[in-house]
Amino acid sequence: MRGLAEPQCPVDTAMGVLSGRWKGSILWRLHENGAMRPGELRREISGVSEAVLLRQLAELVDDGLVVRTDHGTWPLHVSYEISEYGATAGPLVEQLCAWGRAHQARIG
Amino acid sequence: MRGLAEPQCPVDTAMGVLSGRWKGSILWRLHENGAMRPGELRREISGVSEAVLLRQLAELVDDGLVVRTDHGTWPLHVSYEISEYGATAGPLVEQLCAWGRAHQARIG
Repeated sequence: MRGLAEPQCPVDTAMGVLSGRWKGSILWRLHENGAMRPGELRREISGVSEAVLLRQLAELVDDGLVVRTDHGTWPLHVSYEISEYGATAGPLVEQLCAWGRAHQARIG
Repeated sequence: MRGLAEPQCPVDTAMGVLSGRWKGSILWRLHENGAMRPGELRREISGVSEAVLLRQLAELVDDGLVVRTDHGTWPLHVSYEISEYGATAGPLVEQLCAWGRAHQARIG
């Protein structure tokens, strides 16, 4: 049996970054649509509250996957977009989307 | 903005199936090593309790990703392996692993 002793299983690391009720959806929307405002994200992702959305966006910013831009206007105009590093997760988000779609079709 | 109204975001569906503290690790080990007994999985995945391992294996069986085989012997000999359907998640698990490894290197 191949010993796979590692500090933490890389799959768990990836899942840890991407887990969070809405993070997959957030990354997918930003990956598909580019920069978006919180209000736009909320309209696309049914069921998420503003507080949870902003917290998960902040976690994605902390992890370096998303960039927050304050456009310095009043009223406040803030947008979020995939960072250069976040783009490395693009193919993974696409594959999660494709597999998820096939799983939805399978379970009907 | 491209409306992406779907019953549930497929990325969330995929994350829902794969989420669970150890499921990524379990799928990766079974994907890498073939059929394994619970004891073997526990030795490979440090920190998981037997109860949690068996519960997450049962959920993966319910979702159709893993097959449980009772070899009909005494003492009890049970093994788990990736199902034919579970194999469709193989490339996804590999990509999660690769991205997770790169993320581990990035955060040091």
